[in-house]
Amino acid sequence: MKTSGKNKFDLDTPCLVLDLDLLETNLRKMQDAVNRAGKNLRPHAKTHKCSPLAQKQREAGAIGICAAKVSEAEALVKAGLGGILVTGPVPTPGKIKRLVEILAVDPSLMVVVDHREGVNLLDAALSERGLSMDVLLDVDVGLHRTGVKPAEALELADYILSRERLRLRGIQAYAGQVQHIRSYDDRKTASHQSLQEAVPLFRELEKKAETCTIFSSSGTGTFDIDLAVPEVTELQVGSYACMDAEYLDIGSAENDRQFTSFGPALRLLTTVVSTNQKGFVTVDAGLKSLYRDGGTPKIIGSESGMTYTWFGDEYGMVICPDPVGLPPIGTVLELVTSHCDPTINLFNQFYLIRGNDVVGVWPIDLRGCSQ
Amino acid sequence: MKTSGKNKFDLDTPCLVLDLDLLETNLRKMQDAVNRAGKNLRPHAKTHKCSPLAQKQREAGAIGICAAKVSEAEALVKAGLGGILVTGPVPTPGKIKRLVEILAVDPSLMVVVDHREGVNLLDAALSERGLSMDVLLDVDVGLHRTGVKPAEALELADYILSRERLRLRGIQAYAGQVQHIRSYDDRKTASHQSLQEAVPLFRELEKKAETCTIFSSSGTGTFDIDLAVPEVTELQVGSYACMDAEYLDIGSAENDRQFTSFGPALRLLTTVVSTNQKGFVTVDAGLKSLYRDGGTPKIIGSESGMTYTWFGDEYGMVICPDPVGLPPIGTVLELVTSHCDPTINLFNQFYLIRGNDVVGVWPIDLRGCSQ
Repeated sequence: MKTSGKNKFDLDTPCLVLDLDLLETNLRKMQDAVNRAGKNLRPHAKTHKCSPLAQKQREAGAIGICAAKVSEAEALVKAGLGGILVTGPVPTPGKIKRLVEILAVDPSLMVVVDHREGVNLLDAALSERGLSMDVLLDVDVGLHRTGVKPAEALELADYILSRERLRLRGIQAYAGQVQHIRSYDDRKTASHQSLQEAVPLFRELEKKAETCTIFSSSGTGTFDIDLAVPEVTELQVGSYACMDAEYLDIGSAENDRQFTSFGPALRLLTTVVSTNQKGFVTVDAGLKSLYRDGGTPKIIGSESGMTYTWFGDEYGMVICPDPVGLPPIGTVLELVTSHCDPTINLFNQFYLIRGNDVVGVWPIDLRGCSQ
Repeated sequence: MKTSGKNKFDLDTPCLVLDLDLLETNLRKMQDAVNRAGKNLRPHAKTHKCSPLAQKQREAGAIGICAAKVSEAEALVKAGLGGILVTGPVPTPGKIKRLVEILAVDPSLMVVVDHREGVNLLDAALSERGLSMDVLLDVDVGLHRTGVKPAEALELADYILSRERLRLRGIQAYAGQVQHIRSYDDRKTASHQSLQEAVPLFRELEKKAETCTIFSSSGTGTFDIDLAVPEVTELQVGSYACMDAEYLDIGSAENDRQFTSFGPALRLLTTVVSTNQKGFVTVDAGLKSLYRDGGTPKIIGSESGMTYTWFGDEYGMVICPDPVGLPPIGTVLELVTSHCDPTINLFNQFYLIRGNDVVGVWPIDLRGCSQ
C-alpha cells in the first residue's frame, strides 16, 4: 500500500504511528545524557521490536542493542545489528543451540547467566562448536525475577571464570521494581539502594579479572539517576524512544508530577465506529490493539476532556463529560498508549510521521519474538 | 523447522499448542447441539484467528464464519472460506472500499450496519461498483458497544430496505455482557431477557421482507441457552473451539461450578528459566505471550498446587506452597490460558498435538488483523 504522502488521519485504523521529530529528539536526549556522563548506551529492543529503530539508535551512538529473548537476538543479527546483549538467562539446550548459532554469525553477542546449570550447558555447547562467548553475571537487585542473589554472586562468578569457553565481562543489575515509582526522590533513593547491592561485587570482579569492565543497568525511569552511579558503565533503557502513558505519569527531575524528559513519539490512531449511545461513543481499538496494562491511554488534544476505557477485544469506549463534545462517526482519535512494549507487540508496522504527513513505514520485525 | 514427530515438551517455549482430540470433540459437540436444535452455526474466527481451523469448522457443518474486522474477512476469503459475516459496523470510506473489494471476490460476504451514515456510505460504494450486498441490522441488546437500540431499529430497518444496493437479511443481537455470568441460571435469565428485546423486531421484519430470515446471536457461555430461543436462527460462538480459564470457571447446565461443555484444547507451554528464589520460580511466558485479561491461567496437572502469576512483559512467576514441589530449571509447564482470544493474537502459529506428539502446525494467519 502506498502510504507516503498520505495524511496520518487517512490511515486505516487501528494503527501505530511514530512521530519522527519526537523520536529523534528522544534518541538524541538520551545519547547526550549518556555521553555527558562518560558512559555507554545499549538500548533495549524489547520495547520497540523494530530493527530499523535499533539501527537509528546505533547511528545516534549506541554501542549495541539489548534483546530480551533469543528470537529477538536472531532477528537483530539477521538485520545486521551488532553488540547484542541477551538480558535474560537461557538455561535450556534448545535455546542455547540457537544462541550459539547466532554467535557463530556475530561474535559480539553476549548473554547473561544466573545459575550453574545454564553456565554448564552453555560451556558445553560452545565447546562442541569450538567457540567462546562473552557473558554477564545477572545479579538480582530486588526485582527477584532473574539473577543470582548478591550474597551468592561471587561464588557463581568464580565458577564462570573457571569455565574455558566463557569470558566474564561484568554484571547486569536491573532494578525493574523501581522504574515506575511516582516520586522522583523516592525513585532515586530506591534505585541507589538497589544498585548499591551490586557495587561491592562489581568492584571485586574488576580486581579478579581484567575482562570484567561492564556494569549494565537502568531503565527509562531511572536513566539520569543511574548515570550518577560511578560504577555503572552502560544503560539498557528501552521505553524512552517511544514513551507511554505509564511513564509520562511519573515525576522527573524537573517536574515532580510529570515525566518531561522524553516525549510521546508513539501514538495509536483509532476511529469512532458507533455512536448510538448517550455519553460515549465506540472506537475500533480494544484489547487486541492496545494492551490493557500500565495505566489508561490518553487522548491527545482532547479539549472536551474525552477519556478512553476498554470495551472488549476489538473496541474501546470514549467517554465525554459534555455530550455535545462527542465526536461523530468516522472521527480519528490519537492516543498515547498505556504500556508501550506489549502494545507494540500487537502490530506489524509503525507508520512514520512528520507533523501530519506519513513519510514511511518501519516493520515491527521482532513482533512475536517471545522465544 | 521440522516439528512433526517431536514430543510437545521438546518445543521451544513459550508456544501455543492445540490438542486435536479435544478440539475435534469441541467442534463436534457444538455442531451436534446446533443440528439437534435445527439451527445454523457460523462460528467466530476472532477467537482462533486461524483459517485452517475455520476450514475444520466448515467441514464439521458450519454454514460460514464470522469475522470481527474487515482485515479478518480479507484473510478468510483469501484462504478460500465463504459465508463470511463481518460482525462489527464498518462506517468509514476506506474500510468500506476494502469490504466491497472482498465482496467482488465472494458475493456471500455479509456485514452488519447500525447507523444511517454507514448505510449511506456502503450503498454509495456498492452503487459505484455495480454490486449489491447482504446486510444484518446490528441490534443493541444490552452490551451498548455497537448496534442500534431496539426502539430505533425499525426505522433504520425501513431505511435499509429503501436502499437499492442493500439486501436486509435479518438481525444480529449479541448479548456479550451475559456470557461470563457465573451462575448458569442467572446467565439463562439474563440472556433470555436480552434476546427478547430483539424478538418483536425480528418478527416484524420477517413480515416486512421475505429476505429477513437470519437472527444471528449467542456466545460460548449461552450457546445451549440461546438454542432454546425459537427466533434465533444461527449461533456466532467463538471460544468453544479453544477454551480458556475464564470460560472454564463459569457454571454450566450440568455443573454449576464448572463449564463442562467443552474442553481446554488450547494450551500454552512455558519453561522454568530461573530458580534462585524461595517459594517461586520464574518462567519464560509473560504479558507478551499470555494476555493479562479474564482470570488467572491454570497450570495443568499440578499436583503440588502450583499457580501462575504475571511477572512482567517476558516472565511469569510460578508459586508453589510446598517449596519441595518447585520445578527445576528447564521444566516445561502446560497452562490453560487466561482469555484465549487476545492470547492467540500474540502468536504466529499453533502446534498441533495428539497426546504428547506434535503432528503439525497451523498458521495463525489472521493474527494482528485488527483493522
